[in-house]
Amino acid sequence: MPPAPTTFTVSEATRKKWSEAVNEQANAAPVLDLTVDNITENVIAVNSNVTDNPRLQYLITKFIRASHDFIRDVGLNFEEWEQVWKFLTSVGQISTDVRHEMVLLSDILGISALVDSISHPAVPGATEYSLLGPFHDDRAHFVELGESITSEGTPGEATLVRGTIKDINGNPVNKALIDVWETDGNGTYDVEYIDKDGPDFRGKLYSDKNGAFYFSCVRPVPYPIANDGPVGALLRKLNRHFFRPAHMHFIILHPSYDKLITALYTRDSKYIHSDTVFGVKSSLMVDYVWTEDLKLAEQYGVKPFKRVLDGVEKEGFWLLEHDFVLVGKRDPVSLKTRD
Amino acid sequence: MPPAPTTFTVSEATRKKWSEAVNEQANAAPVLDLTVDNITENVIAVNSNVTDNPRLQYLITKFIRASHDFIRDVGLNFEEWEQVWKFLTSVGQISTDVRHEMVLLSDILGISALVDSISHPAVPGATEYSLLGPFHDDRAHFVELGESITSEGTPGEATLVRGTIKDINGNPVNKALIDVWETDGNGTYDVEYIDKDGPDFRGKLYSDKNGAFYFSCVRPVPYPIANDGPVGALLRKLNRHFFRPAHMHFIILHPSYDKLITALYTRDSKYIHSDTVFGVKSSLMVDYVWTEDLKLAEQYGVKPFKRVLDGVEKEGFWLLEHDFVLVGKRDPVSLKTRD
Repeated sequence: MPPAPTTFTVSEATRKKWSEAVNEQANAAPVLDLTVDNITENVIAVNSNVTDNPRLQYLITKFIRASHDFIRDVGLNFEEWEQVWKFLTSVGQISTDVRHEMVLLSDILGISALVDSISHPAVPGATEYSLLGPFHDDRAHFVELGESITSEGTPGEATLVRGTIKDINGNPVNKALIDVWETDGNGTYDVEYIDKDGPDFRGKLYSDKNGAFYFSCVRPVPYPIANDGPVGALLRKLNRHFFRPAHMHFIILHPSYDKLITALYTRDSKYIHSDTVFGVKSSLMVDYVWTEDLKLAEQYGVKPFKRVLDGVEKEGFWLLEHDFVLVGKRDPVSLKTRD
Repeated sequence: MPPAPTTFTVSEATRKKWSEAVNEQANAAPVLDLTVDNITENVIAVNSNVTDNPRLQYLITKFIRASHDFIRDVGLNFEEWEQVWKFLTSVGQISTDVRHEMVLLSDILGISALVDSISHPAVPGATEYSLLGPFHDDRAHFVELGESITSEGTPGEATLVRGTIKDINGNPVNKALIDVWETDGNGTYDVEYIDKDGPDFRGKLYSDKNGAFYFSCVRPVPYPIANDGPVGALLRKLNRHFFRPAHMHFIILHPSYDKLITALYTRDSKYIHSDTVFGVKSSLMVDYVWTEDLKLAEQYGVKPFKRVLDGVEKEGFWLLEHDFVLVGKRDPVSLKTRD
């Protein structure tokens, strides 16, 4: 049987579809005099001899049919196809270990969000998934509970983040690994700075025995995705803006729970209703609450800053509180299945 | 109205489809809480504001729908998509000015052949089109009628090519530019040799007032497409071979006729029925005829070679004769229309 996608269970109907696709190799025919109307079946026949990977066999067969149908439907011509393959080549060529232009292309076409929704269907009561994005960096430093994930002098407004990690029955999750990353107050990730050596505005910490976590950072702001490459050029041609609303990324890991990749979006942020990569979900919208509780600041080691409110200078900081709910690896499969 | 594809005329029905696609922008909606089932309409709405290029508007709209439908249909998951975008990135990264890996990918999936068939529908009585391939080089030297397009010492068996260029009414085409390229007898193009400076096994020449042309060269042989990159790795996974049957490429140009991009395939070549890029057409199959007519060799400046036939050494060369038929720019549009 074909291997199932790793993150959800497939139905018997789907398994049957895969077997049928494999059997299309029975249609093998000489590759000769192919026309607009008969080429697809022949190309599929030629690509129907994968012996050790039925899932690949299924995907390539389906891809050939879908791509050919699309090309026939729109009547794509030689000059247009030349533009497409040159564009895709340039997307690959500008990519590096820290710049994933192909992901960006996938993001702005809603493909990443769709794949994400398929792989991580919403489980009632649990925190929803959101896009990983291209800026996760596993080299982030570990911090103790209450420490700051931003270095001294990071531009941005001081923020205390606190919350809990729980399971879907409300039990605290001890020693969950929280991997968090964000932009600084300029809307820039550490890896986007040429002269920064080492991770910043990101960190890893563990929840305590009550499932609690807390750390300080800066309040994230909206920012434009990289738009100096082919994807930026495409967005311009499509008359689209480049911006994501302010958000903070999280991955939460624990051996007994499904990996959670998500982000918290700032409810009053500009672009909250027009995220250029289609990642925002209502359940992931959060409020940053202004507080002048300097005792709390001292307790958590947050450095308050000054801000003019109604003409009066005030000293305080932002407080973000959020509880994450994980799905257990042993929770019923029916919860996690879409098919 | 949207600009029509450059090489054929579209019907009113197609024009109407384009207009409707543009109007989908009326569906614009907030980008929030997108699910597997509602994401496509929303992504299309966001991409429906192209103001100056209705064809791009149509293509992007159709592409979003087709790609999303494919992903939903196969249940593509996060890990699989990661493999796909990393693969596409590597296809771009290995590409250079003379190595077009994205074209190769398009070729082995039958996409190039399909786009070619759409752009160049067969016209009764005229020579059929075939794939351009990645090895055309506009820097080819001009040669006089009867000269060789291969340099002294090129590996391979001496061949005389002669034929005519005519229109669909049988009239000769004077001063048609014939741009021809092939591999040497090792199955290698000039640009694939690291130490070759300048074009070889390729040339440009003009037909005479009778439409006639003739040149000498070497007989082409089957060869494997570049398979040291990601496309080669994919072909291995698909259990496919890498070979094209022996063929000689031609572009024929004349101001009064449609540009003809084609190739002549050797009828008795290995892989003639399994061309890995799906280019072979019966009407483009040709025979290389062995001749020991040394007077003809002298007349055309061909250097005969020795070959053992039925245990006896013979001296001779190969003769390839073919007539090309061009479609006039003023020939009825109905001939060139598929839609």
